[in-house]
Amino acid sequence: MAKLSLKDAQQTQLFTFAYPQRVYFEDTDAGGVVYHARYIHFMERARTEWLRHLGFNNSDLYRKHKMVWVVSEIAIQYLKPARVDDALEITASVDTMGRVRCTFYQEVRRGDELLVKARVSLATVAADSFKPIEIPADLKKKMEATC
Amino acid sequence: MAKLSLKDAQQTQLFTFAYPQRVYFEDTDAGGVVYHARYIHFMERARTEWLRHLGFNNSDLYRKHKMVWVVSEIAIQYLKPARVDDALEITASVDTMGRVRCTFYQEVRRGDELLVKARVSLATVAADSFKPIEIPADLKKKMEATC
Amino acid sequence: MAKLSLKDAQQTQLFTFAYPQRVYFEDTDAGGVVYHARYIHFMERARTEWLRHLGFNNSDLYRKHKMVWVVSEIAIQYLKPARVDDALEITASVDTMGRVRCTFYQEVRRGDELLVKARVSLATVAADSFKPIEIPADLKKKMEATC
Amino acid sequence: MAKLSLKDAQQTQLFTFAYPQRVYFEDTDAGGVVYHARYIHFMERARTEWLRHLGFNNSDLYRKHKMVWVVSEIAIQYLKPARVDDALEITASVDTMGRVRCTFYQEVRRGDELLVKARVSLATVAADSFKPIEIPADLKKKMEATC
Repeated sequence: MAKLSLKDAQQTQLFTFAYPQRVYFEDTDAGGVVYHARYIHFMERARTEWLRHLGFNNSDLYRKHKMVWVVSEIAIQYLKPARVDDALEITASVDTMGRVRCTFYQEVRRGDELLVKARVSLATVAADSFKPIEIPADLKKKMEATC
Repeated sequence: MAKLSLKDAQQTQLFTFAYPQRVYFEDTDAGGVVYHARYIHFMERARTEWLRHLGFNNSDLYRKHKMVWVVSEIAIQYLKPARVDDALEITASVDTMGRVRCTFYQEVRRGDELLVKARVSLATVAADSFKPIEIPADLKKKMEATC
Repeated sequence: MAKLSLKDAQQTQLFTFAYPQRVYFEDTDAGGVVYHARYIHFMERARTEWLRHLGFNNSDLYRKHKMVWVVSEIAIQYLKPARVDDALEITASVDTMGRVRCTFYQEVRRGDELLVKARVSLATVAADSFKPIEIPADLKKKMEATC
Repeated sequence: MAKLSLKDAQQTQLFTFAYPQRVYFEDTDAGGVVYHARYIHFMERARTEWLRHLGFNNSDLYRKHKMVWVVSEIAIQYLKPARVDDALEITASVDTMGRVRCTFYQEVRRGDELLVKARVSLATVAADSFKPIEIPADLKKKMEATC
């Protein structure tokens, strides 16, 4: 059963990474607003840049450890729509960390407005078998320092 | 706070709609499996065809009632990955229904295997203001008959 | 330099494959019509089903021959827009065939209306090196029989 | 018939706008490289930022002139694949300009390597009828100054 919820974080985040994202026509649908699945793309971009900010990237993790991330669970809530040309910020911060699984809390903001919030659980798996493997120690250490 | 969970449905579904979906290259990523946000597209396609199966469609709902659906919340769990050329089935069944909001329970299956499951909450809103409006009575009646 | 053009085919097609495609919200943008890059996805789906219709599929071609297709060139012309809920047909027919490269002529139609037409050139390459390899003989034979 | 070709530009470009674009997992497919339709998204992002750089944006053009752009034709050539984490540059420069139609020449580059090149024709149309309308005079003047 799902263990993710969107309750507010218990502890103050010491480190929140924010990734700027402009809204393009490709991101919208005929309702005139950003298509709901699109925010999940934005959140992956933010986590990727957060990783790069910590000094890592997915290509290197694959080459060195034959590992990839898989998303195991998402709980996402849509509060207000974003529209073409909006300048958004997508945050990413580590909420919980285990040996093979970690959970991010992420928000999509437009200035002071909170548009979307989500918890995203990921696991580190072997690229060939998709079996869980431990998060590399150096990455884990860096991640723990942020939460 | 999020109210959606992925606990099993309390009651047996009397009506489950299943939409066939082949996996194409466009649906996959460099990890060799279907990109996680993509299942959310598949689920929207299934709900759209479910709606058509009930005798309604989004174009007509817009023309007659100036209404669109917005997704307000998703709780999704990824159990196993799908790959290129897989023949999937995406189910859609109404789980709860209110006056402006309803929740679907949806699964992605490959034969007997459950790959992904989700609860998706939607609200009916006015196409111009995005303010909540009631689900049209004839559609509501049909939806209630399925759950 | 590009060699593709959208001149009408010199010869009558003996075999045209048509793939039905419904338009969903995900396919549209805030202009209210299908996003222009989306038709290129539709065309890939049609070619994939055309391949399956000939008795082949990409997973098997990868397993047996370690080959993948790469698109090397597209010339596409947008004549009329498609909208949500439209029932489209995407055609695919082989226009020219070489040893490692072939060109498809494809149309997107809504009933009698031609909405989009394109020529799409593909090459068969080795999955690891992306170097050109010959189209497998049995597939080539089947393809030649269609044009 | 298509009039676009990928012959080299006759004249030296005086002004080339380049938009940086990182490659994310969402952009790739199971072949391990960027999905071919994705570059067409990247090119639209580059044209949108080019427009913003000239002092205009699509939301304002819609509000003031009830106009939207439609892509009428694309000729695109794929030379080399891009991969996850690549840092790309997408250029955009006006190649030809008429009263309602203009053509861009665009490239996707990774450092010194040219990966993809395209000519993209667009027309300015009324947002409601999709009938051609003239490019607003102030925008046209700015565009002509770049080519």
